[in-house]
Amino acid sequence: MQRVCFLLKVRADRLDEYRERHAAVWPEMLHALKGTGWHNYSLFLREDGLLVGYLETEDFDAARAGMEATDVNARWQAEMAPFFETLDGARPDEAMKPLTEVFHLA
Amino acid sequence: MQRVCFLLKVRADRLDEYRERHAAVWPEMLHALKGTGWHNYSLFLREDGLLVGYLETEDFDAARAGMEATDVNARWQAEMAPFFETLDGARPDEAMKPLTEVFHLA
Repeated sequence: MQRVCFLLKVRADRLDEYRERHAAVWPEMLHALKGTGWHNYSLFLREDGLLVGYLETEDFDAARAGMEATDVNARWQAEMAPFFETLDGARPDEAMKPLTEVFHLA
Repeated sequence: MQRVCFLLKVRADRLDEYRERHAAVWPEMLHALKGTGWHNYSLFLREDGLLVGYLETEDFDAARAGMEATDVNARWQAEMAPFFETLDGARPDEAMKPLTEVFHLA
C-alpha cells in the first residue's frame, strides 16, 4: 500500500464554499473514488487555503487513471477548478504531485 | 480515531541531513511514539522543505502530552530543533498545529 500526500492551494475568497462542497461530495463521486482504489482519503485545509491531501492506495498512478476514466470525475473537477489557485491550466487532479515520504511508523 | 495533519518547515540547507536522520529514528523514540498512541504516522517532505505530518490517534492532545513526558522526546526534539525554520522559540513538537479535516472517505 502506498501512502500519498499532495498539496493544492484553495483561493482565499472561496474557502467557505470549498468546505461546504466537501461536506457534501456527490455519492457518485465517493463511489468512484472507492471503486478506483482511493482509501483512507482525507483533505485538510489551513486557514490560508493550503490544502493537504492524504490517501492510501495500491498504486497511485492506477488510482488516478481509474478516476480519469470516469464521467463523474470530469464533472466534479470542472466544478472544483475555479476554487484553486495557479494550476497553470491543469485540473486540480492533474496538479496532485505527491510529496516524498521520509518517515513512517505503523 | 482522530486523523491529524500538521505542517512544519525544514531549513533548505538541512534537507539531506533531515532525510538521513528520519531514515534512522532512534528505536527508543519509535517505541515511545507507539506507546503514547501515535499510529500510522508519516512525514512527507516537499523539495523546498515544507514538511507534512499525518497520524492517527485516539486523542492528539493526550498523544502529545504522553511524548512530552518522555526523556527521549526531549533529547530528540533538542536535536531536531536546528533543522526547522521560524519556530519562534518553540520546539518542533510544540509547533505542530493541526489543520482542519474538511473531507474523509474511509
